[in-house]
Formats: sequence, structure tokens, C-alpha cells
Amino acid sequence: MGSVIYGLDLLGTFVFAISGALAAARKQMDIFGFLVVAMAVAVGGGTVRDLVLGAGPVFWVQDANYLYVVALAAVFTFFWAHKVSSRFTLLVWADAFGLALFALIGTQKALAFGVEPVIAILMGVVTGTFGGMIRDVLCGEVPLVLRREIYALAAVTGSAVFWGTVTLGLTGVFPLILGFVATLAVRGPAIVFGWSLPVYGSRG
Amino acid sequence: MGSVIYGLDLLGTFVFAISGALAAARKQMDIFGFLVVAMAVAVGGGTVRDLVLGAGPVFWVQDANYLYVVALAAVFTFFWAHKVSSRFTLLVWADAFGLALFALIGTQKALAFGVEPVIAILMGVVTGTFGGMIRDVLCGEVPLVLRREIYALAAVTGSAVFWGTVTLGLTGVFPLILGFVATLAVRGPAIVFGWSLPVYGSRG
Amino acid sequence: MGSVIYGLDLLGTFVFAISGALAAARKQMDIFGFLVVAMAVAVGGGTVRDLVLGAGPVFWVQDANYLYVVALAAVFTFFWAHKVSSRFTLLVWADAFGLALFALIGTQKALAFGVEPVIAILMGVVTGTFGGMIRDVLCGEVPLVLRREIYALAAVTGSAVFWGTVTLGLTGVFPLILGFVATLAVRGPAIVFGWSLPVYGSRG
Repeated sequence: MGSVIYGLDLLGTFVFAISGALAAARKQMDIFGFLVVAMAVAVGGGTVRDLVLGAGPVFWVQDANYLYVVALAAVFTFFWAHKVSSRFTLLVWADAFGLALFALIGTQKALAFGVEPVIAILMGVVTGTFGGMIRDVLCGEVPLVLRREIYALAAVTGSAVFWGTVTLGLTGVFPLILGFVATLAVRGPAIVFGWSLPVYGSRG
Repeated sequence: MGSVIYGLDLLGTFVFAISGALAAARKQMDIFGFLVVAMAVAVGGGTVRDLVLGAGPVFWVQDANYLYVVALAAVFTFFWAHKVSSRFTLLVWADAFGLALFALIGTQKALAFGVEPVIAILMGVVTGTFGGMIRDVLCGEVPLVLRREIYALAAVTGSAVFWGTVTLGLTGVFPLILGFVATLAVRGPAIVFGWSLPVYGSRG
Repeated sequence: MGSVIYGLDLLGTFVFAISGALAAARKQMDIFGFLVVAMAVAVGGGTVRDLVLGAGPVFWVQDANYLYVVALAAVFTFFWAHKVSSRFTLLVWADAFGLALFALIGTQKALAFGVEPVIAILMGVVTGTFGGMIRDVLCGEVPLVLRREIYALAAVTGSAVFWGTVTLGLTGVFPLILGFVATLAVRGPAIVFGWSLPVYGSRG
């Protein structure tokens, strides 16, 4: 079970790193820029989570595999970004998969530190969304997640469902599957129908 | 005494969170953006302080009340930002109150870690001003506090007076009151008369 | 030996702080802005390194001399920036010196924490380059190091040579000298000949 989650975690890291590398491509960065922005998206959220939890060395310092995956994604995208970005639909769904997974892993790790439920859910959202925010700041843009799209709300939903099912006593893979489904149940329709949250000033 | 300071701390958190939410309103963010920018302003400075001090889990991970206050301020501003922002004078003075309080609390916490006085005063300034800097970076702007206005200087003054009175042996509420008055004695006239520090290049 | 490195470290801090203060001058900041951006460049990379390593209070909280050096550089530049910036060639080479030194010190500190080699080398790069990235973000610009110039690559080379010579059993000053020479062997020609890494989209 643990190794399945670890494998999925590395897969989510790969997907998020590609999202960062594509942003680096749009900004015409060099390979170092690809690596840094890919790393920011892929491990930035989990890094902030580990720091505010006071978790000691952050997760990728303890396990360099995350960095190898990020480097692979950055180099791959540097040479084949035009082919990667043409798979737009695949990318958006892969990103939703990464969001769901990171939110649940973040919530799980926070719960292991014994924090209050609201903090644990927040740590799930931070793990899933802060990497993308750092990406946008590095690219000189106001973070997309702050302005539109139902994205963070999906992470909140999945993290809350995960916490709820754990609290209800479910064990093993069930809380993860239910949290995963809950995240995609919110994010999926938002992708398909282009839904977004109302922004301030749009309410007439 | 402790509970009075705690109550004032939550009040300062509310005021700073409103400042963040109003910035989110200007950038037409959605409710998640309101929450993130409000949180950045209200707890960003204290978070940086706790991290560089190596203080373990940051303060709002240990006490979720700060987040509830931030959420309240963000939601309130999302629905009534036009009414909030029309109270401009009140806001500026409330912000000065928050600045003074956060600077003193930051200095106090740093002193409890046994750091050198200059570090303790710096931690007061960081607690009071870094949240606003993160807000401006998230909004894609060069931080206001770096460019003009006598703002950080007020935090320096208040933190130094607090440290000085503590070092002189004053106890209880006196160092806090004197530090508070010192901060406002610098920030107040700057607000009333529009004073700012000279910027580079403005000297002829 | 230790005191020589400490002296060089403070010299590197001074040089990096001047780079930050000159950026503050270009953005017409006030003296507080000079101090913050100088501090960001001079201690930002080492701060991120200490945080992700879980090293407890960051290095400049434990030793305020770094801040005194930063303050000296910021105030000096605030009053004589025009004279400082006219020494452009000197500045670029002083910056290369600081980059080499910070990369080696960062790698050394990370190795002392027992991390994997790839993490230690990365920590060298982070120590040498993240300060400049924070500077650019504070100034509202996409970080220069992400877009062009052979800069991070020089830090990678120096850090890797340092790690390699330490692993081969060399002790004392030799790994530092070899790492230093390796960094400048990459950065030097890039300065002299204006070399940069290819950016995405430049390959026809």
C-alpha cells in the first residue's frame, strides 16, 4: 500500500514538474530556469507544509528521488515542450490527478503531526496549490489560482472528505480513494464546463 | 494580562487580514484569493519569524483561532469590500495599531528565544512588515513598504523601545505600552502629514 | 583556517548585499528597501538552505555579524550608489567570488547534515543563487538567473568539485580551493565572453 502511494506521489511530482517546465518554456528560460520552476511547482507546496509544521528536513532533502523525477520532467520538457503542450487535455487531467493526490498526502502528513482538523485540511490545500502559486510569482504573474478556476476548492473538498473518513474510522485505502474521488468530483466538472468561482466585482 | 494581549493579537490579525482582502478585491480575485492574501498579510510576518527562529510548528499551526479570524475577515470583505474601503481613515489607523502590536509581539517572542537584541528588534520589524510585502509580491507589485512611507521605521522604533524598557528591568504591561506609544509616535505623524523617507535618487 | 573562511564569508555577504542595494537604487527605494533587498540577496540563499535542512535557527539569527555587514553595505550604497555602480567590472567579478564562496559553504554545511551528495550540491546552488532570485521577485522582475547567463551552472560545477574532492579524502583547504577555481573556471569565461545557456525557443 505504502509503495503504491509512493509511486503515485512520484507520478504526481512528475506531472506538476511538467506544468512548471511548460511555464518556463513560455517565459523562454534556460535549462536552469526549467529546473527551478519545475521544482517550485512539484515540491514547493510540500516544502511550505513541512516548514510550517516544523517537520525537520523537508521531504525532498530526505529522499532525493523527488528531485530526480523533477530533473527528468524538466529536461524532457526542455527538448520536447512543443509536443508536451500539444497534449493540453491530457495535461489538465494529469494536473487534477496531481492536485488530488498532493492534497491527500498533505492532509495525511499533517494529521500525523497531531494538528487540528482545520489545519490538516489547510495543509492539504497548501500542498496541492502553493507550488503553482510560487511558479506564477517566479514568472512575474499574479497567481492564477487566486483569480479564477475551481481548483483550491477541489483540494479543500478532497482533504475534508479524507479527514472525515479517517475520523469516522475508515482505514487502509478507503479514505484515499474517497478523497480522490471527491477532489475530482469538484475539479472534473470545472474542467469540462469551464466553471470558475465568482471574482470580486463580478457580481454586478 | 496574557489574555488581553491574545485578544489584541487576534484583533491585529483581523485588521491585517482586511488589508489583504482589500488588495485581493483590487486585483479582482475569487474567494480563495481573498483567503490567501488575507492570510499572507495577517500571519505571513509571524510565520517568517517563527521559521527563521527555528520555533517548531509556526504559531497558527498551534492555534487555529488565527485562521478563523483571517477567514472571517476575508469573507466579510469579499461581500462588503466597498463599505470597508470607504472607511479609509479608520483602516489606516487600525493598520498602525496592528503594526505596533505585531512588532512588539514579534520582539517579545524573539527575546524569549535568547537571541541578540538586534535580532529581536529585526524580528519585530519582520513580524510587522513582511506580511504586507508578501501581499504585494502576490499581487505582482513591488512592495510598498520598500519604496515609501514611514512604516518600517515605526516598527523599528517601537521594537527598540520595547527591548530597551525590558532590558532596563521594567516588567508587566509597561514595556508593551511604551513600545506601542513609540510606534504610533512615529507612524502617527507620518499618516497625518503624509511623511515618507527619502528614496534613492530624490536627493537632487 | 576557520577564521579565514569566516572572513571570506562576511566579504561575500558584503558583495552580495551591494548587489541587492544597487537593485534597490534602480527601483528608487528608500533606505528600508535598500536594507531588505540587500539582506535578501546576502542571506536569502543561506536562509532557504537552513530552513529546508531543518537546521534550527538560521545562521544570521545565531550570528548578527552578517546583519551588520548587510546594513553597512546598504547604507554605503544608499549614499554612494553612483560611485559603486560605476565599478561595474569589479562588481561582476566580486559577485563571481561571492557565488563561488557561497556555493562551497552551502555544500559544506549540507554535507555536515549527512544528506545525499545530490542534495548537498543542490544546497550549494541554492545558497549561491536563491538570494538573487528573491531580489528579482521583490523588484517585480522574472529572476535573471532563470533566463540567461552561465551562473547557476558555475555553482553546480564548484559544488560538485568540492563534494568530489572531499569524497576522495582531501582535507583542509584543498577542496575549497579546487571548488573555488572550478566555479570561476566556468563563471569567468561566461563573464569575459558574454556566454549564456541556450534558452527555450532559441534553437530555431
